[in-house]
Amino acid sequence: MADSWVNPAERIGRDLHLDLAGGGGRRAALGRALRAAISDGRLAPGTRLPPYRSLAADLGLARNTVAETYAELVAEGWLVARQGSGTRVAPRAEPAGPPRVPRPAPVRPGPPAHNLRQGLPDAASFPRTAWLAATRRALNAAPSDAFGPGDPRGRPELRRALAAYLSRARGVRTSPGTIVVCSGFAHALSLLFGGKVLRGPLAVESYGLPFHRSVLEAARVRTVPLTLDEHGARTTELFALQDARAALLTPAHQFPTGGPLHAERRAAAVDWARGSGGVLLEDDYDGEFRYDREPVGAVQGLDPQRVVYLGSLSKSLSPALRLGWMVLPDHLVEPVLRAKGEREAWAGVTDQLTLADFIESGHYDRHVRRTRQRYRDRRDRLVARLARRAPHIAPTGIAAGLHAVLRLPPGSERPVTETAARQRLAVDGLAGFRHPAATMPAHDGLVVGYAAPPDHGFEAALDALCRVLPPPPGGD
Amino acid sequence: MADSWVNPAERIGRDLHLDLAGGGGRRAALGRALRAAISDGRLAPGTRLPPYRSLAADLGLARNTVAETYAELVAEGWLVARQGSGTRVAPRAEPAGPPRVPRPAPVRPGPPAHNLRQGLPDAASFPRTAWLAATRRALNAAPSDAFGPGDPRGRPELRRALAAYLSRARGVRTSPGTIVVCSGFAHALSLLFGGKVLRGPLAVESYGLPFHRSVLEAARVRTVPLTLDEHGARTTELFALQDARAALLTPAHQFPTGGPLHAERRAAAVDWARGSGGVLLEDDYDGEFRYDREPVGAVQGLDPQRVVYLGSLSKSLSPALRLGWMVLPDHLVEPVLRAKGEREAWAGVTDQLTLADFIESGHYDRHVRRTRQRYRDRRDRLVARLARRAPHIAPTGIAAGLHAVLRLPPGSERPVTETAARQRLAVDGLAGFRHPAATMPAHDGLVVGYAAPPDHGFEAALDALCRVLPPPPGGD
Repeated sequence: MADSWVNPAERIGRDLHLDLAGGGGRRAALGRALRAAISDGRLAPGTRLPPYRSLAADLGLARNTVAETYAELVAEGWLVARQGSGTRVAPRAEPAGPPRVPRPAPVRPGPPAHNLRQGLPDAASFPRTAWLAATRRALNAAPSDAFGPGDPRGRPELRRALAAYLSRARGVRTSPGTIVVCSGFAHALSLLFGGKVLRGPLAVESYGLPFHRSVLEAARVRTVPLTLDEHGARTTELFALQDARAALLTPAHQFPTGGPLHAERRAAAVDWARGSGGVLLEDDYDGEFRYDREPVGAVQGLDPQRVVYLGSLSKSLSPALRLGWMVLPDHLVEPVLRAKGEREAWAGVTDQLTLADFIESGHYDRHVRRTRQRYRDRRDRLVARLARRAPHIAPTGIAAGLHAVLRLPPGSERPVTETAARQRLAVDGLAGFRHPAATMPAHDGLVVGYAAPPDHGFEAALDALCRVLPPPPGGD
Repeated sequence: MADSWVNPAERIGRDLHLDLAGGGGRRAALGRALRAAISDGRLAPGTRLPPYRSLAADLGLARNTVAETYAELVAEGWLVARQGSGTRVAPRAEPAGPPRVPRPAPVRPGPPAHNLRQGLPDAASFPRTAWLAATRRALNAAPSDAFGPGDPRGRPELRRALAAYLSRARGVRTSPGTIVVCSGFAHALSLLFGGKVLRGPLAVESYGLPFHRSVLEAARVRTVPLTLDEHGARTTELFALQDARAALLTPAHQFPTGGPLHAERRAAAVDWARGSGGVLLEDDYDGEFRYDREPVGAVQGLDPQRVVYLGSLSKSLSPALRLGWMVLPDHLVEPVLRAKGEREAWAGVTDQLTLADFIESGHYDRHVRRTRQRYRDRRDRLVARLARRAPHIAPTGIAAGLHAVLRLPPGSERPVTETAARQRLAVDGLAGFRHPAATMPAHDGLVVGYAAPPDHGFEAALDALCRVLPPPPGGD
């Protein structure tokens, strides 16, 4: 082994492809090359390295450079130096045991040809230029301490902008002190329930987002379904649920069946919360996207001390920004901050400051108006296409939001979604949104998101949809 | 009640300070004004509103505008409309029960006059211009789908940049597929342990960050302390811990006592992990900030399948960016992604893309070099000041990092920190970092962070520090 170094410079320079031209200086490059050679097995455990003077001379490096590199690799555990026996590759620098066979990567399905999945905005509509301009203004205006550890509620600039916006646009009654910025709806849910700020059982709507239920299951919160009808959730059922301590509702536009919560149902929910000491969670997930009438304001305005109002940028700007907010009753602010911890998991400061500017400069309203127009147009094209190609299938829940529900004949949902999957059309059936304990009648249907496809692919996506719909009764 | 409207236009226009000039059009302004009046109690529950025609005429608004506003407020639950009795303020639009007395806000201590707390970089050194330029390049270059729901591991651009950087600068052996972006160190810990990817008991160093311990406690992970000496943690103790399944170490620079983990201790830790099937967690919390010698590479390079390498931007750029990363053994990638969930709590896409550009364009290295020089200069000033003003107190652990440890005479730590608090000097005693079950001898000491004060306040902070140090033995 000791004799294996016949011409070290040649070996290192040739066999080991030592490239001293890399970044970080020649010393760093030498260290890198040696580490690589050891990890790759080109320098086996126990191999003696040439004395640093020889290697330095052969490579045209200063002796110090090589000596320090050796010392560095000794300190890191790659090499061992023993008085009298020189410097060797450490015996443990390679994993013991048989060589690891790389596991096959889990099979991930390829991207769909057409994406009509709900809950996604058109990624191409992200207003890059305006957002960048807002970042520029925000970074220039920010005080230095913005880059230090921040208020765990989120930046004050953003909470001020949100308080004003939510009051103006959504009828929310709040002040910057009761807003807590978070990374999105599920983050809020997991802070509230995983962090034991609120406790279950939690009443939910019989149809809702499965990933909300997974967050709640992870926090071991039992959920109890409320029946839905054409007026939204039957909140009067809350009074009969002896042990429910909170209720999660989508008052602006029931997800996914569509339609706002009726005024009496809103009032009943607030009455229940007041009488029972319960808390309402208001998921205002697409309160900004209403087409055929003015937006219905938030339930939160009826009683800010009984409602936790939850919103995010996921539909209005981009789910990739990871930015959301909670508007909290006064008594829940401190418990939520305790659950969150001082140090982690709030959104990055640049996005917070940028959003504050984006809202206050009017760009947020402008963007919402522009995308609302764009989505309304897409909805109209969907409706028109169905009227022409599948008049037996009427879209419902289309006055708002980024999706429609197509009722299907009984028994046809599953064959339709299976055909869609085979044809690489991504679209969800209603069944996946149904609460496992729901007792209301189940309907077959498709939840068709019309926002996600790029403009140039929208017509083709509608064609693909029409191809998988069941034929009219009596036709073939 | 019905007669209380004598001159509705006058009441609304005068008493209620109706301001139709606000943003969003006159209809929105009318809705706002009415909601405000109801919330404030200026329009009491049960009060009948004037017929919409009269109000429209009085305010000079279109009838439709007022009718629609009434309908909107009815839908929201502010008003109730009954055939024959007109439109009234809803009985439940104000909270039932006695008026709520606002709770006093929790007392938060005022900001310190001087901040020598550890763990904070100089917030003023955040490179706004270079960061903004990187954001511009990144947003221009990003594909549209960057603004859709992303890969739960984080953006591929960033994982590629991190893989190359960590390999070059820290000797980490990785590929983009085994990196998972997260919001910081505590987020990583809570995914790993709260998400049940790893299980305790977890060996930790006898001195460490209390907030790491809180995250672990929240995940119900029992921690077992390892003794520290001048070579770092005694990792040989791991072999005697029958049930430890993981070990959390700070090999680059033990926190807070200082000093790199000795080569033999590194090797012993890896041997333990291999022999026991355990996992090492490597907290490379200030691997980039070494002053008097080259950085010691990561332990992860010795065996990537046994080490979870954890890093973040909190020290190198800003804790407010909320951006960190895990480099995972292959078999832990999928479990971590399952723990994280597809939808939430990864960092925002603009920061991820910006950081990828910032690293690849060389700005990250440049920033680290510049701040390293700056912090070294501050450390030298601290050392020089102590040599002059308190020669009996030698700083230790100063070859790296953003803090020094000042050993204090036995029994003096508590009086010193109490004096400091009274003088509004923020500085931590060693005791707060000690594991409650540690058995090694406890030393009195101060952990002095020298990075946080702004440049103009640094000398004054050093003065404040020298004023609270105990006098030399024999002096007074």
